[in-house]
Amino acid sequence: MCHTVSVTGQIEHTLRGSWTSSGAAAAHLSPTSMRWLRQRIGLTDTTTPAMPSSLLEVPGSALPQDARAELEALVGAANVLVDDAARLGRAGGMSYSDLIRRRSAAEFAVPDAVLLPGEAELVQGVLEICSQHDIAVVPFGGGTSVVGGVDALRGGKRAVVALDLARLDRLVSLDPTSRIAVLQAGMRAPEAESLLAAHGFTLGHFPQSFERATIGGFAATRSAGQASSGYGRFEDMVEGVRVATPRGEWRLGVAPASAAGPDLRQLAVGSEGALGVITEVAVRVRPAPVRSRYEALVVDGWQAGSDAVRELAQSHNLADVTRLSDVDETEVQFALSGGLKSRALNGYLRARGIRKPCLLILGWDAPSRRELGRRRTATLRALRDIRTVSLGRAVGESWKAGRFSGPRQRDALLDKGVCVETLETATHWGELSELRSAVRTALVRSLRSGANRPIVMCHVSHAYETGASLYFTVLTPRAENALEQWQTAKKAAGDAIAGRGTISHHHAVGVDHQPWLEAEIGGIGNEVLAAAKRAVDPKGILNPGKLLS
Amino acid sequence: MCHTVSVTGQIEHTLRGSWTSSGAAAAHLSPTSMRWLRQRIGLTDTTTPAMPSSLLEVPGSALPQDARAELEALVGAANVLVDDAARLGRAGGMSYSDLIRRRSAAEFAVPDAVLLPGEAELVQGVLEICSQHDIAVVPFGGGTSVVGGVDALRGGKRAVVALDLARLDRLVSLDPTSRIAVLQAGMRAPEAESLLAAHGFTLGHFPQSFERATIGGFAATRSAGQASSGYGRFEDMVEGVRVATPRGEWRLGVAPASAAGPDLRQLAVGSEGALGVITEVAVRVRPAPVRSRYEALVVDGWQAGSDAVRELAQSHNLADVTRLSDVDETEVQFALSGGLKSRALNGYLRARGIRKPCLLILGWDAPSRRELGRRRTATLRALRDIRTVSLGRAVGESWKAGRFSGPRQRDALLDKGVCVETLETATHWGELSELRSAVRTALVRSLRSGANRPIVMCHVSHAYETGASLYFTVLTPRAENALEQWQTAKKAAGDAIAGRGTISHHHAVGVDHQPWLEAEIGGIGNEVLAAAKRAVDPKGILNPGKLLS
Repeated sequence: MCHTVSVTGQIEHTLRGSWTSSGAAAAHLSPTSMRWLRQRIGLTDTTTPAMPSSLLEVPGSALPQDARAELEALVGAANVLVDDAARLGRAGGMSYSDLIRRRSAAEFAVPDAVLLPGEAELVQGVLEICSQHDIAVVPFGGGTSVVGGVDALRGGKRAVVALDLARLDRLVSLDPTSRIAVLQAGMRAPEAESLLAAHGFTLGHFPQSFERATIGGFAATRSAGQASSGYGRFEDMVEGVRVATPRGEWRLGVAPASAAGPDLRQLAVGSEGALGVITEVAVRVRPAPVRSRYEALVVDGWQAGSDAVRELAQSHNLADVTRLSDVDETEVQFALSGGLKSRALNGYLRARGIRKPCLLILGWDAPSRRELGRRRTATLRALRDIRTVSLGRAVGESWKAGRFSGPRQRDALLDKGVCVETLETATHWGELSELRSAVRTALVRSLRSGANRPIVMCHVSHAYETGASLYFTVLTPRAENALEQWQTAKKAAGDAIAGRGTISHHHAVGVDHQPWLEAEIGGIGNEVLAAAKRAVDPKGILNPGKLLS
Repeated sequence: MCHTVSVTGQIEHTLRGSWTSSGAAAAHLSPTSMRWLRQRIGLTDTTTPAMPSSLLEVPGSALPQDARAELEALVGAANVLVDDAARLGRAGGMSYSDLIRRRSAAEFAVPDAVLLPGEAELVQGVLEICSQHDIAVVPFGGGTSVVGGVDALRGGKRAVVALDLARLDRLVSLDPTSRIAVLQAGMRAPEAESLLAAHGFTLGHFPQSFERATIGGFAATRSAGQASSGYGRFEDMVEGVRVATPRGEWRLGVAPASAAGPDLRQLAVGSEGALGVITEVAVRVRPAPVRSRYEALVVDGWQAGSDAVRELAQSHNLADVTRLSDVDETEVQFALSGGLKSRALNGYLRARGIRKPCLLILGWDAPSRRELGRRRTATLRALRDIRTVSLGRAVGESWKAGRFSGPRQRDALLDKGVCVETLETATHWGELSELRSAVRTALVRSLRSGANRPIVMCHVSHAYETGASLYFTVLTPRAENALEQWQTAKKAAGDAIAGRGTISHHHAVGVDHQPWLEAEIGGIGNEVLAAAKRAVDPKGILNPGKLLS
């Protein structure tokens, strides 16, 4: 029995207008949205103004003169930067704590220099010089780490440099028969898509960090894009890697699959700069889609929704983008989409049997209209036993248009004094709802105080046959001590996750997740990683303090 | 334009009769087949008789008394075997060289004892005792290694024991929601299928070693089954592992995917007993298929065939079993299927435009007749631009019925004095045909001598978006010095593969592939593996001489 019904013309019109306004360019929050949010979370008039970088105190560069001379001789003087602006620009990533530290002019680690080698061989040379001079090296791509992965930690070394891979931005080769492209690690995702599109291909990797993040960063952190249901996680796309290490170059990946011992590619992928600097990645590419279609449904409640996504995953009928929001996230999305009379929408949904609306975004990419139709039909057919109400294409396409705007929206919320941060995990289907509840409870308990009424919302955006990810977003009034407020909540969430799910499904370990890594990979896992590190980086210059403590 | 035509009734009838006779039970080669083969490869009347094991000389057990007492106290005296038969039964695997050594009563390594612990905790205890007493431990599952992976090498230790996991044969748990089963490592594949079938599930892992091989062995060697196009390689099925190591137990796998650093599961999978003894594996399972259908097509020539398989892989229309034989393998299959007038078949095919027949076996498993029809139609539609002639279901179903009979057929050929062995590799599509030619040429050159006319045949049985496997079978008259004959040929093939493809797509490294491992994973790769081994096995008792030299 098919419960799917289409949204009426009027509601769809309203939705189209509303959702489009939250599209790509929108960093701005409408007065209506802000009014709703203030009331919902108990926000006062606190603000968190951005701090001009000129007011930040930048320590002098500690790069020793002899090392600097050698580095300049290797990569060119123009590619060894020691000015404050360059160093500040590579000081840390994009977590809430990073943003707060910058806005509050708190102390944070700044590299002693920024190096910009233009060839993979020069990266190798940089590591050799830094090894000799006892200088820590932090590989730097798009700088979008939200786990402290690019913090300029010195690790007891004489100095620390940010090894910015921005000039490694070339398409090295493309084999259209094997559908493999070799990309340099510093290439940003939009550039990669644009270069591949010229040959009719796509990588299909669209994480929220898409606009800034790099190919090397994706590999180093085991990134997962919003279309991972269709295109796979980044590690699924990696055919081979070229890695610079203090012990020499390391190349891996001569076949799509192998039984020649453990898959060491999967050790390089996720190594977070601690086991080497990825300089090139051979990636599987696919023909750029000719047709795509995004649409939105509403299902009734979290359990029905996650059962539906599980059914899609296990019957191999997932749309390329499959994203289920829980009731809280759906409420916020409806409310913040601006101007939408969510009361009208809720009435409309209630009349169709939906009491706890959970938004389900589905998006398909296909090589033809026919194939798109076939796949869409298969997806919707697999949902036929579940009550759904269609909100039509407007909402889906609007979600697509705004899918990279999260970071800008976060900046706007920060301005208004909102504590806004995300965290994520994954587990098996049998434990998914329990884990979601545990994390929600931990976060709400930690963040509720006085008039604060934190919103903890959640979505599933990556589904597998055996389980799924859970992505939480927190909105609550910022406390006086903003850093401590979030760190306490983060600790509560991490403790709730440990043993029940992975401490990170796609944000990596960095500094922030280390407290829980051993619970996940065991003491032996930690020792194996440390042993691998000693083998490739005996002096420990590579990204100290990340991944491994 | 669709070139597919169906085989006429008469030919199909002939094929059905012929192919069925080469089914599961057939170890026997018909006089007609043998006559054809003798002529084709230049075989004389040499035979290679099997040697009764009572004639083999078995060295006495060197297991120290104190160690034996401790092991008996731990696992029970009945589970510490030191008799000749038990030890001989775990002396080496199933490679051609293993079989020849046994038939010629050549010297080979025999373990000093066989241990049969019945619980994962006891495996852990065994490793601790063996560590204290400086005793090497060779984990033993089905004993089907064809690369020396279970050779009872001592590695300079006082003694060597075979740690037979046969008693670890339980289904530990089954989560039907998450579709994950936890299986003990010593469970044989048919037993696993049977236990899962009782709950409506299948693993879908059907390598040629299926009848004897174990779950732990599949994981330790990165096995790939004949239906890998549908169900994935074994490592794709592994959700988690429990591993005993001399440093303690190691458990991995809390989520379907993770960004918590490198994927250490992929280090345990493929570790070949050198980094630990896998005691339990959590595997993804799927609903047992309700319908299945196997059929055979013929395509015209290797290039057209491999282009067809590539098209299927890249358009995601592979049948669950997709297996393309080259002209030589097709000729042998037609000829050895017994009684078939291949001249008639070739005439039939020529009349339909097929000059270089290459057999393409396609098999689909599906949850319903409708889904089977849909998938089959999609596969065949993707082949519509390629000239194919259908040989119908008889040939396909007969292939399925006989798909585990290779080892028995090999024994029969060995009896008749045939040198018969296989080797395999994988590479990217762009290099596939060149690699096939290079390996063929190397093998033929090495094996051709006097009146010998070696057959080197090849098939693709595992296809990916970016490349495929190549599986070679050699048939040639056995030389006087059989071991040297094959070792020389194997070296020539390995040298041809190194740098062009992986040294093993699904047979693992063991002893035999070590000479080429460094070319594949680099000196740094070797050092990383060695470092990981030191971390988990500081005394080096685990499977000495395998994977790492």
